[in-house]
Amino acid sequence: MEKKRVRLVVAYDGTAYHGWQYQNNAVTVEEKLHDAIFNLTKEDVEVVGASRTDAGVHSLGNIAVFDTDSPIPADKFSFALNQYLPEDIRVLKSDEVSPDWHPRKVNSKKTYEYRIYNAPIPLPTKRLYADFEYGDFDVEAMNEAAAFLIGEHDFKSFCSEGAQVLTTVRLLYDAKVYREDTDIVIRVTGAGFLYNMVRIIAGTLMEVGRGKRAASEMPKIIEACDRQAAGPTAPARGLTLIKYEFE
Amino acid sequence: MEKKRVRLVVAYDGTAYHGWQYQNNAVTVEEKLHDAIFNLTKEDVEVVGASRTDAGVHSLGNIAVFDTDSPIPADKFSFALNQYLPEDIRVLKSDEVSPDWHPRKVNSKKTYEYRIYNAPIPLPTKRLYADFEYGDFDVEAMNEAAAFLIGEHDFKSFCSEGAQVLTTVRLLYDAKVYREDTDIVIRVTGAGFLYNMVRIIAGTLMEVGRGKRAASEMPKIIEACDRQAAGPTAPARGLTLIKYEFE
Repeated sequence: MEKKRVRLVVAYDGTAYHGWQYQNNAVTVEEKLHDAIFNLTKEDVEVVGASRTDAGVHSLGNIAVFDTDSPIPADKFSFALNQYLPEDIRVLKSDEVSPDWHPRKVNSKKTYEYRIYNAPIPLPTKRLYADFEYGDFDVEAMNEAAAFLIGEHDFKSFCSEGAQVLTTVRLLYDAKVYREDTDIVIRVTGAGFLYNMVRIIAGTLMEVGRGKRAASEMPKIIEACDRQAAGPTAPARGLTLIKYEFE
Repeated sequence: MEKKRVRLVVAYDGTAYHGWQYQNNAVTVEEKLHDAIFNLTKEDVEVVGASRTDAGVHSLGNIAVFDTDSPIPADKFSFALNQYLPEDIRVLKSDEVSPDWHPRKVNSKKTYEYRIYNAPIPLPTKRLYADFEYGDFDVEAMNEAAAFLIGEHDFKSFCSEGAQVLTTVRLLYDAKVYREDTDIVIRVTGAGFLYNMVRIIAGTLMEVGRGKRAASEMPKIIEACDRQAAGPTAPARGLTLIKYEFE
């Protein structure tokens, strides 16, 4: 009998992890999922993730698949795996997909949120899930600047060195910036993102918010196709992968 | 010259602490504040807190005072102490009060929030600041039940053993329960609270929400003046001291 492919929706607090992808000398989310599946099924599977989030980045809905001979129904894996996972990783949902369904080879929309806690003094209960920034931000200017990112562009200026990709062209469906109580939220939806792309977008938009750059400079920053043209990479703790939507 | 009395508004993530009050063999918030003041001023002061929150309970606005000969202006202590405090404790504000001002001897209103993340599966990024509960809750019934708590009552049924108090009579100004997205929030404001009182109120209201008790039973539970009459003590992580208001 053919193995079945199980798809997982995975939420995690990235604080304690060196990102998603397996590493020899550091604890990762992929490793914890692999171990939980092994402890549940005794199968040594390959866990394939949709997004290889960086160290410290959080998720409300990363996607992973694995193949199994286990008689456990696909939709029961969620509850079963949670018994073997640490408290800071949870499988929110599981279902069966066709054996050729690959989370990085299907068309999808991904939504990320970058959250800034904007106040005079950091708040301890916010420190893990938002970047702290004091001082004034022009959120309208940030939102204006973000609008220039929407569409298909070469986002090379917003990609950290060391990424091996065939093309740095990506398609953004939406990018907006708004206040939510004490927070400034940068929310972007796209067909795909480059290495550190959302954090570099956040760092650049923060410079716009502080008046160091004009919103109208964004097209020039994009056109430069040069990492030096954009702002700094904002801290990982502010970033959360919100959701995947598949066609 | 007389020492000046400095008042602090203190926020903390209670996860790593054995509560507010100094203990010999455990790390507490009071100890961390004491040490920060010592490192800043070289004075070995007594830090007097308004609320001795339990292990694991969070704060957005506990109050503390200490006396000092330091030339640092009272309103500058906030920023100065934050340089010496761990990331999970922050002084949000500091000011000078009269030398006889004592945070437990002045009339005040305290507001606490007990937060329940109500969903099928726990969310990692919510686990530290909310109690997780799955299943259905009748939030209207919880709110009805909470209304019976408003006013001056003997809250002995809502007080854990081991507390040394002259009276278990307390005055509640407000108590309400409402949904906030995926959360159920229990918000209470009172002139004072007994040991574990808000967590026992939360545990009792959750039983009402699950239909184990009727809202109309609350007067009987109060009148019993017996800890056994009320529900369980809800977990500490769901509780946050929101603010103090002084006359």
